[in-house]
Amino acid sequence: MSETQRFGVSIPKELLDKFDDMIADRGYRNRSEAIRDMIRDRIVEREWEEDEEVMGVVTLLYDHHQHHLSDKLTGLQHDFHQLVISTTHLHVDADNCLELIAVKGHGGEVRAMANKLISTKGVIHGKLLATSTGAGLS
Amino acid sequence: MSETQRFGVSIPKELLDKFDDMIADRGYRNRSEAIRDMIRDRIVEREWEEDEEVMGVVTLLYDHHQHHLSDKLTGLQHDFHQLVISTTHLHVDADNCLELIAVKGHGGEVRAMANKLISTKGVIHGKLLATSTGAGLS
Amino acid sequence: MSETQRFGVSIPKELLDKFDDMIADRGYRNRSEAIRDMIRDRIVEREWEEDEEVMGVVTLLYDHHQHHLSDKLTGLQHDFHQLVISTTHLHVDADNCLELIAVKGHGGEVRAMANKLISTKGVIHGKLLATSTGAGLS
Amino acid sequence: MSETQRFGVSIPKELLDKFDDMIADRGYRNRSEAIRDMIRDRIVEREWEEDEEVMGVVTLLYDHHQHHLSDKLTGLQHDFHQLVISTTHLHVDADNCLELIAVKGHGGEVRAMANKLISTKGVIHGKLLATSTGAGLS
Repeated sequence: MSETQRFGVSIPKELLDKFDDMIADRGYRNRSEAIRDMIRDRIVEREWEEDEEVMGVVTLLYDHHQHHLSDKLTGLQHDFHQLVISTTHLHVDADNCLELIAVKGHGGEVRAMANKLISTKGVIHGKLLATSTGAGLS
Repeated sequence: MSETQRFGVSIPKELLDKFDDMIADRGYRNRSEAIRDMIRDRIVEREWEEDEEVMGVVTLLYDHHQHHLSDKLTGLQHDFHQLVISTTHLHVDADNCLELIAVKGHGGEVRAMANKLISTKGVIHGKLLATSTGAGLS
Repeated sequence: MSETQRFGVSIPKELLDKFDDMIADRGYRNRSEAIRDMIRDRIVEREWEEDEEVMGVVTLLYDHHQHHLSDKLTGLQHDFHQLVISTTHLHVDADNCLELIAVKGHGGEVRAMANKLISTKGVIHGKLLATSTGAGLS
Repeated sequence: MSETQRFGVSIPKELLDKFDDMIADRGYRNRSEAIRDMIRDRIVEREWEEDEEVMGVVTLLYDHHQHHLSDKLTGLQHDFHQLVISTTHLHVDADNCLELIAVKGHGGEVRAMANKLISTKGVIHGKLLATSTGAGLS
């Protein structure tokens, strides 16, 4: 982590009151924390837009009785093995399972891999969460 | 506008550098302006979630040759006349027009009206933009 | 509008029931209309991602007592006059007004112009709504 | 899974061509699969809005050198143990780790827990991905 700096924000009193309400509600202990989180959120969006190295999580919800489906999903993950860090498999109920695939790579290739997994026949619901390696966020 | 206050934000130097890059890119002249805009954005989201009085714009793209369509859309707007402030009609090309309907009301009723307009047969693309009356933002 | 075609969708009965509930709720008269709207929504997202010619609406909420602000916003719109189709000005209350600027151009340049307008000092809340010229949607 | 039904969609030829392009690009093998995914996506959004039982993943990126932070995050997860299914911990680099917390519960309580975790001092970037138990999606 780099050295800490400080800057001042001027803001109408009423707007500050609303902000204080909102961050109390979400559990922040002080304004700096909330402001830093808002800034980091925008920077992460930008990392993805500009195809920098990012991290993400792909979730795949599927019925494990579907013939050959887990083989197929495993195969696809091997095709992209340089992007996949780890996979967690959860048994949601008697039929459905949820797979959490942690991925790291450039924004575009992560998105392409996610699309491929999500569009596989038998996947009930798939999604991609965009986060960061943190390299540019501390 | 209420009286201006000032508070300090502590932040790692590298994160501040990234923030400065980002806001220069978007045209902000100083950090306070950018921070206030981020805060207002979140407050507007909250006004909509909590069904407060808000403003919005509904856009409707449609082919004006569609039989009775503009009559129907005008009729619907009259049914909700207490929500509609003004309508701007644009001729996009020989066939299509874009209607911009400025609306004001509680979040839920504005959304319901927008859904009704957008789902009308013949509307090619419809969307709702969520903004604010500004009452709680200055 | 081009000739109409028809294709079949196979779908589990329970999922279809949920879909029927959802579209009734939003005011659709039949499934084809709802499906076409979902498809068009995705195509419009893609037009923006791929920097095609698009349309949009920029909303600017501001206090018209702010010194020189409307001059400045008008000046900026003139700088981008090839993108601006029309501007509607609404008096929200004694202080605030909402400007609706209809724009047409390539996705990237529309976004850049919107950023410039939204980041202008004195603009309380600004947003960009992404819609389409309709050229590829009928 | 319930019995399969079939319904027809009528659609202008050009729009269908665009749709076919788009789904080929994303890896779908046929239109029914793509349509079902679009429908399920909207249903999952609705499950969250209507506070039904849902599943999600909370990601927390943080520097594990932060004093007491992992204890604190583990403590918070225990406070909400009825919502947490499993936690996967990844070492991103020498400093940062990414925690993937799979959660199941009503939309509102999952969101409240996620806010609490994400706003904890020391968390660099936190996010909530909204997915489903699949109970209403097959």
